[in-house]
Amino acid sequence: MARAVNVAIVGAGLVGSAFINSLQSLRLSSITYNVILIARSSKALVSKQYTPLPLQTWSSDLAAASSSSVLSPGDLAAYLEKSPIPVILVDNTSNESLARVYPRLLQQGVSIATPNKKAFSSEYGLWTAIFEASANLTGAEKRGLVYHESTVGAGLPVISTLKDLVATGDEIVKIEGIVSGTLSYIFNEFSTIGEEEALKFSDVVLKAKELGYTPDPREDLNGLDVARKLTILARLSGLQVQSATSFPVQSLIPTALESVEEVSDFLAKLPEYDAETEKLRRDAAAEGKVLRFVGKVDLSDGVSDRVKVGIEKYDASHPFASLKGSDNVIAFHTKRYGKNPLIVQGAGAGAEVTAMGVLADVIKIAERIAT
Amino acid sequence: MARAVNVAIVGAGLVGSAFINSLQSLRLSSITYNVILIARSSKALVSKQYTPLPLQTWSSDLAAASSSSVLSPGDLAAYLEKSPIPVILVDNTSNESLARVYPRLLQQGVSIATPNKKAFSSEYGLWTAIFEASANLTGAEKRGLVYHESTVGAGLPVISTLKDLVATGDEIVKIEGIVSGTLSYIFNEFSTIGEEEALKFSDVVLKAKELGYTPDPREDLNGLDVARKLTILARLSGLQVQSATSFPVQSLIPTALESVEEVSDFLAKLPEYDAETEKLRRDAAAEGKVLRFVGKVDLSDGVSDRVKVGIEKYDASHPFASLKGSDNVIAFHTKRYGKNPLIVQGAGAGAEVTAMGVLADVIKIAERIAT
Repeated sequence: MARAVNVAIVGAGLVGSAFINSLQSLRLSSITYNVILIARSSKALVSKQYTPLPLQTWSSDLAAASSSSVLSPGDLAAYLEKSPIPVILVDNTSNESLARVYPRLLQQGVSIATPNKKAFSSEYGLWTAIFEASANLTGAEKRGLVYHESTVGAGLPVISTLKDLVATGDEIVKIEGIVSGTLSYIFNEFSTIGEEEALKFSDVVLKAKELGYTPDPREDLNGLDVARKLTILARLSGLQVQSATSFPVQSLIPTALESVEEVSDFLAKLPEYDAETEKLRRDAAAEGKVLRFVGKVDLSDGVSDRVKVGIEKYDASHPFASLKGSDNVIAFHTKRYGKNPLIVQGAGAGAEVTAMGVLADVIKIAERIAT
Repeated sequence: MARAVNVAIVGAGLVGSAFINSLQSLRLSSITYNVILIARSSKALVSKQYTPLPLQTWSSDLAAASSSSVLSPGDLAAYLEKSPIPVILVDNTSNESLARVYPRLLQQGVSIATPNKKAFSSEYGLWTAIFEASANLTGAEKRGLVYHESTVGAGLPVISTLKDLVATGDEIVKIEGIVSGTLSYIFNEFSTIGEEEALKFSDVVLKAKELGYTPDPREDLNGLDVARKLTILARLSGLQVQSATSFPVQSLIPTALESVEEVSDFLAKLPEYDAETEKLRRDAAAEGKVLRFVGKVDLSDGVSDRVKVGIEKYDASHPFASLKGSDNVIAFHTKRYGKNPLIVQGAGAGAEVTAMGVLADVIKIAERIAT
């Protein structure tokens, strides 16, 4: 008989929609995925008898749902825990309150696939609570599994590669990466090899906004998104990082502009600070180097800041220097990958590739738990 | 109660030894791995009652075993099929006769983790027999699972990435890669950007041998190793490639030297053909390009040779041009990874990283089958 799992999808925006579309077009699957819940912040479709929802019309059905249909995290947990067959929660939100019920869900046997960084980069206590409640660590079959490939680099094999390296006994020496699509784009445009006519930093930031990389560039320029991703990489490498603000993070927002409210005002004033970024760029160029905004986990002897986020300089021949567009790149320096690092590179943001990472996780979980 | 699997290890050379060492130092494992068999071509340690063999002394125990202890593929299968708990065969050989019993083993519920390329790059019938017998495709719980990450790029996440792309519904457009460590080293040394004093091709081949990349460079220069790997990548992409010789493969062995027997004679005569490779290198350099030995799977419209192995030219700014040492690199161009490819790069040969890929596979299988 065909094996099956139930799937509950919370978050039906760009990533959620892409996920549902991909799920509908799954090929070569020996497992049936029954979607029993689709929710967004204000509304929800819930199959009370745990029978599959019709997926062809999910979007209009959800739009037509009553606004009293939305479930609190607690109600959602209570609903999922009663699923008659194994169930996977697909959390496509960046909602911290939902992340806080992960330990309860996992303990009750609900598995989780998610790109939600908040769940893994908030205080260290939540991290340990999640993994101690899961079957990932305990191996207990009654516990749920948690997979989170898309929390770093979207669908790129970053989390799975790091987990494989650690699980098979390799020793992480250093992880270095460009893990923000927006900041990758900004620095790839701003600081290039052998370019005479350089763009102004503020112009590139504006262009990034216009191209749709970010509605409010400050959310990327403050470094926190990169810091959250580095927190996850550092913790998987064995460091007990307390939070995403417990290590040095360079903000590219000029101090004087920190209190500006409107994004338009911020962008109007940013050109006043172009001289600072221009000096950095020129100094690097004089050494034959380019600027990149990177995160680092460094476990080498004698390093004081084991985790660090900010601008770094790279030689023209370094793989980070020839990065294109908004690509991410992560370099794993380990004991086994000693001389040259193991490198993973490619699009690290966007709904399609994020949803792909989540769906690959869902498949891996289903292969382990479907009955 | 702790979950457990039995593990049977065939092939106890460099990769096999590295695998056993890594298995002994496994961390954070909630599963117990009981090694019940260790075999090399001439000898075997077999636990007849399926109780764990002592691993500390495996090497001397195996050396002391009688030479009548070795099992035929058929006897091995009969032994494994009677394992009282789920069992994983770790085939660290490149033995085709062992590969031919994979379908039988999988059908009988034995799972397989292996870097053995022969199993997946021989005639297409063996490929389909393997996957049709496995739980990978059928989903039947009684069937064994087969994982083969280390057949391409050793421990690099190549096979798993390709499988995830295909399983989640992405469309492969083109896969391009440098997948031979020896040929990577040879071309990275021979054809470099902006180097005036070029080395002779035959000198680089000699150096590759001296550095231990290959005992007989002809085994790499004939292109067959790359062709086997491309056969696997092409089949995973959905192409029914009949065999590793059913598409164009460029051999770097001069026709006149094909019948030379001794490797020393071959190396002594190779300098007579340096003019040919030198011309190729100069022509590329005149265009600002370098030579690399690559394999390609191309599913784009109108391409006549869908699979192809041989020398290609790359611009100085291309990621393949700045490759170092004996690193492998694989670029996946897909519908989702449209503008820039998903790239995986790093050491793609060597006992340690090959064993790591096999061990990561063993862990993934065990997580699915351990009881």
